[in-house]
Amino acid sequence: MVPHLITALTGPINELEARILDSMPAIERWFRLEWMEHTPPFYCSVDLRNAGFKLAPVDTNLFPGGFNNLTPEMLPLAVQAAMAAIEKICPEAKNLLLIPESAHSRNTFYLSSVQRLMRIFTQAGLNVRLGTLDDTVKAPTPVALPDGSELVLEPLLRIRGRLGLKDFDPCTILLNNDLSRGVPRALQHLHEQYLLPPLHAGWGVRRMSRHFQSYEEVAKKFAKLLGMDPWLINPMFGQCGDADPTDAAGLDCVQTNVDALLTKVRRKYKEYGINEKPFVVVKAESGRDALGPVTVRDAKDLGDAYARARSRMAPPASDAGEAGGSAASEATQVIIQEGVPTYERVNDAVAEPVVTMIDRYVVGGYYRVHAERGVDENLNAPGARYVPLAFAGSHHLPRPGEKPGVNAPNRFYMYGVIGRLAMLAASYELEATDPDAEVYE
Amino acid sequence: MVPHLITALTGPINELEARILDSMPAIERWFRLEWMEHTPPFYCSVDLRNAGFKLAPVDTNLFPGGFNNLTPEMLPLAVQAAMAAIEKICPEAKNLLLIPESAHSRNTFYLSSVQRLMRIFTQAGLNVRLGTLDDTVKAPTPVALPDGSELVLEPLLRIRGRLGLKDFDPCTILLNNDLSRGVPRALQHLHEQYLLPPLHAGWGVRRMSRHFQSYEEVAKKFAKLLGMDPWLINPMFGQCGDADPTDAAGLDCVQTNVDALLTKVRRKYKEYGINEKPFVVVKAESGRDALGPVTVRDAKDLGDAYARARSRMAPPASDAGEAGGSAASEATQVIIQEGVPTYERVNDAVAEPVVTMIDRYVVGGYYRVHAERGVDENLNAPGARYVPLAFAGSHHLPRPGEKPGVNAPNRFYMYGVIGRLAMLAASYELEATDPDAEVYE
Repeated sequence: MVPHLITALTGPINELEARILDSMPAIERWFRLEWMEHTPPFYCSVDLRNAGFKLAPVDTNLFPGGFNNLTPEMLPLAVQAAMAAIEKICPEAKNLLLIPESAHSRNTFYLSSVQRLMRIFTQAGLNVRLGTLDDTVKAPTPVALPDGSELVLEPLLRIRGRLGLKDFDPCTILLNNDLSRGVPRALQHLHEQYLLPPLHAGWGVRRMSRHFQSYEEVAKKFAKLLGMDPWLINPMFGQCGDADPTDAAGLDCVQTNVDALLTKVRRKYKEYGINEKPFVVVKAESGRDALGPVTVRDAKDLGDAYARARSRMAPPASDAGEAGGSAASEATQVIIQEGVPTYERVNDAVAEPVVTMIDRYVVGGYYRVHAERGVDENLNAPGARYVPLAFAGSHHLPRPGEKPGVNAPNRFYMYGVIGRLAMLAASYELEATDPDAEVYE
Repeated sequence: MVPHLITALTGPINELEARILDSMPAIERWFRLEWMEHTPPFYCSVDLRNAGFKLAPVDTNLFPGGFNNLTPEMLPLAVQAAMAAIEKICPEAKNLLLIPESAHSRNTFYLSSVQRLMRIFTQAGLNVRLGTLDDTVKAPTPVALPDGSELVLEPLLRIRGRLGLKDFDPCTILLNNDLSRGVPRALQHLHEQYLLPPLHAGWGVRRMSRHFQSYEEVAKKFAKLLGMDPWLINPMFGQCGDADPTDAAGLDCVQTNVDALLTKVRRKYKEYGINEKPFVVVKAESGRDALGPVTVRDAKDLGDAYARARSRMAPPASDAGEAGGSAASEATQVIIQEGVPTYERVNDAVAEPVVTMIDRYVVGGYYRVHAERGVDENLNAPGARYVPLAFAGSHHLPRPGEKPGVNAPNRFYMYGVIGRLAMLAASYELEATDPDAEVYE
């Protein structure tokens, strides 16, 4: 099912789709060669925005949730990809300790995703148990799920250099916790066990601008391969270093950047004859902060926009069905990113596709749908509904030769390609921020 | 869909299924460790026989056909597995030359399988073209398929050390031709290109008994892991060296072996309280010969059985929808194998499951159904129909805790495990027969 695409049925996105389909063997080979040089993140999900005139990632989550949104048909692909991932990293692994978000330990949507993840790795051949970083959990604690089943959260047990549970000594620890509050002591100095993803994939270390800088590099390479303008898949951005937009000097820097970026976007819109008012999104460098992304169409509205955002400050988006970040870290550094409207619709509600990957493989995807938000707003917010996207049986099976924009497998193949570009950018990013990088060189 | 299982719903097969499900993580880990030491064949298919009291492979095809029998839902798994296979062997590959069976160049069932295979590898990111060993094909020759599409067979072009087509220089050559007539000159001494599978996987070199000797080794290891009798998954066998069963001395040796094997099988039947008359199957060491496998219940019937087989000698089985071997090689060496009846039924017709694998992954399976054959006969014969088995969405997703014998995903998971054991045996076998083995040691 492709949701009704209002503007996407005509215009540049269809040229992009056609070009991507025509270049499929070259694209797949290009990815193969990139993965010879770079290690994919263990798993990830990428939020895309399809504006009809451009298609770009806006967020790359290295601790993905939403596995419960994948359709059952997608699961065998996920299991097979998990087998490939485990086999490369720790083939001898027997026990896998999964550490979920602590903040969502009562959020049954999130826990359903955790359950799905456990199932995937169990079927890939591991004994999987759940350890929580929440130190109020002192004994194995069952948590009921909506389908009547339950999960058991167990307290972590750190014994010298190893982390485990009572009677459970895993050789591999899988984090599904974005570490936005920094790295807890229980996870530090675990040199005897595989920790996946590595600690520097946490939002305590990651910076949005570093990711999108890597993405720009990837997008340029890819655009060269296809002979196209990288802007069609790349959201431009600016940043202000340490400036805090909540104080006057910081706000001033952000406004200057907003202005400059809007000018650049306007120029691009003119070049492509796009009759829309450009906007930018100001968001926290360190993943999600409590305020959430702020949409601005004019630099001088920034103060007001912040005030509005503050007034509707609400529980974290993850309540709505996904593993979001933890709330309110202290960091207020921001990235100013070109706003990419999303013109996909599911039953008239604004929708954006989310692509889910394990190892280098797209294992599925779904639509994030928000009935109460506009085309220029962040949809990862309370009230979002999730529509599983029938992605699995199809993103591997594009049909060259069909008219662009009308064929679901072709559209999903394109989404999978852009999702993988963002995953590759995350790989570049993690290499650049790896504290142990010199060891390997 | 699980076909109606006449005896399989009770008895040892369900204990086996339960044991395999309970041991799933240990089994998957065991395979992971085996694949660290051994390289899986590039692709393969395994014919299984489910007797209710035992489940065993009876043929392992290293040049599998029947890809057209896989359901569309299975294709994404095949594409993902093909990506993994290519990435490991020749990530830089751009062009893939596929060489199909020449004998079946007018068999549209077989050609539909070839077309499916081309589609899988195209979607894994390769430019795929077909080169034929049939030297009556002097120019690109379109062949029409039942669905209205067509394939183009092109003459091979050997230029010094490289094999290709006109304007097509592949770095990888994929054989879907079992080389039962030996290795054609066009394929010899190709040191600059990847040839998959290697030449010694052809039936000119392979011997059934060598394969089943490797399988016995694998089955014993696996049975030890699960704490069970390897006989439950292993068909016993004997052989006569170079003896030719069509002359008197040869027949005598085969009869002695038939006798000895029947005695061993009878002992096993007694041990398990199986009230059936055992039988053995005499078949060509070098894959399929024109006579086809011969079923015998008493050594003294062997002569008659041969006469009957000769009288119904018929066009090769592959006409019926699969890539069978080429007909009538000269070799008459035989293997005497324990007969494993198949008690699976599809609409009252005798059925046997076929498991298809690419790289180390089960990508699907289907039932071979033959309305005119008995439970003790070879079904890979004219008149066979093929029922695609809804295997994909399920063999990765067994459901522990369900009653054995009634749950399709659990049954298919078990089939996938036994199929992979036979694939592992083929890997052992290819290592043992590798003419270049010393290079790697």
